Amino acid sequence: MSAMGNATNVFWHECAVGKLERQKLINQQGCVVWITGLSGSGKSTLACSLNRELHARGKLSYVLDGDNVRHGLNKNLGFSPEDRTENIRRVGEVAKLFAEAGLICIASLISPYRKDRDACRAMLTDANFIEVFMNMPLKVCEERDSKGLYKLARAGKIKGFTGIDDPYEPPLNCEIKIEQKNGVCPTPCDMAVQVVSYLDVNGFLHA
Amino acid sequence: MSAMGNATNVFWHECAVGKLERQKLINQQGCVVWITGLSGSGKSTLACSLNRELHARGKLSYVLDGDNVRHGLNKNLGFSPEDRTENIRRVGEVAKLFAEAGLICIASLISPYRKDRDACRAMLTDANFIEVFMNMPLKVCEERDSKGLYKLARAGKIKGFTGIDDPYEPPLNCEIKIEQKNGVCPTPCDMAVQVVSYLDVNGFLHA
Repeated sequence: MSAMGNATNVFWHECAVGKLERQKLINQQGCVVWITGLSGSGKSTLACSLNRELHARGKLSYVLDGDNVRHGLNKNLGFSPEDRTENIRRVGEVAKLFAEAGLICIASLISPYRKDRDACRAMLTDANFIEVFMNMPLKVCEERDSKGLYKLARAGKIKGFTGIDDPYEPPLNCEIKIEQKNGVCPTPCDMAVQVVSYLDVNGFLHA
Repeated sequence: MSAMGNATNVFWHECAVGKLERQKLINQQGCVVWITGLSGSGKSTLACSLNRELHARGKLSYVLDGDNVRHGLNKNLGFSPEDRTENIRRVGEVAKLFAEAGLICIASLISPYRKDRDACRAMLTDANFIEVFMNMPLKVCEERDSKGLYKLARAGKIKGFTGIDDPYEPPLNCEIKIEQKNGVCPTPCDMAVQVVSYLDVNGFLHA
């Protein structure tokens, strides 16, 4: 136990059972798969199919969905720039805890700003922040409009909507890009397999 | 996917792999073991020994330590009444996510107010919030004073310190009480075994 920084009455407690021991127990390596992209780009679809595919291989994963978290941990946050940043910071901190617990944590958030995503990357000390960019054309996302939000944004009924009147900053150095091939979108399975392959090759599926 | 409450642009996403599937995979039942008590009452000690004991039995658990979380997720919170409540709310929400992921989440926080702990209990829909009360006399905790905080509080250098100039409200209906026997404190192993027995009897150690 040691005192830390300026917070002289907040100590750090170490436990004998750490990340390595947990990883051995469940034969995998904790990490964060961070899925970013426009609304309608397929983030939740990939998160679900990836979760399913990992489970089928006996791996323990958990989806942190940006929308779902706003009903719990982040229900006291709105959509101001500060609140959006805090929304992403909290999800990043929780994803880090899940990775520390040994899980493959799948975070699915629009997370439009590079600095917010990079702040989450910087929380993870190892190379276990895996950024997945859903590189789908706005046109495709807007045509899907599964939640009807683009329509509202175009009508001016939602302000500051990413891709319409608020920017999306694509990653500069993401680990994985999900894209159309010859104008065709990959299937949920295609996308999951692409991410699972990355995890496999990089040793995350074994302790 | 469905729209929820007033937040018309925040949807709820369901995944095919849910809590039951994850629990089967790791053969246990997700729950929250919430350890409450005075500073120096042995919360962190129990959290660590419980974590170790569960790991020895092949169970996946994770400790959310109130102090540690203040260096990450809750680093933007202070010690005002509102911030203390928010501190506990966030830990409760995260513990709930861990239980949902299938883990035995061990939360260790002074959490002095009944209403804050009960709010966390209310977040869990099943009977899987297990409140453990470290029922140690203030005198014992103060004599230990492992962090030197009681000395500072008695000297008036820390204000609002639980047990000195801020109240601790003992649980009315906790699941487990850790107490002295004939004036002797239980050992870390004694305490862990008491909690593990409860988890075992109540079916949490198997899916």
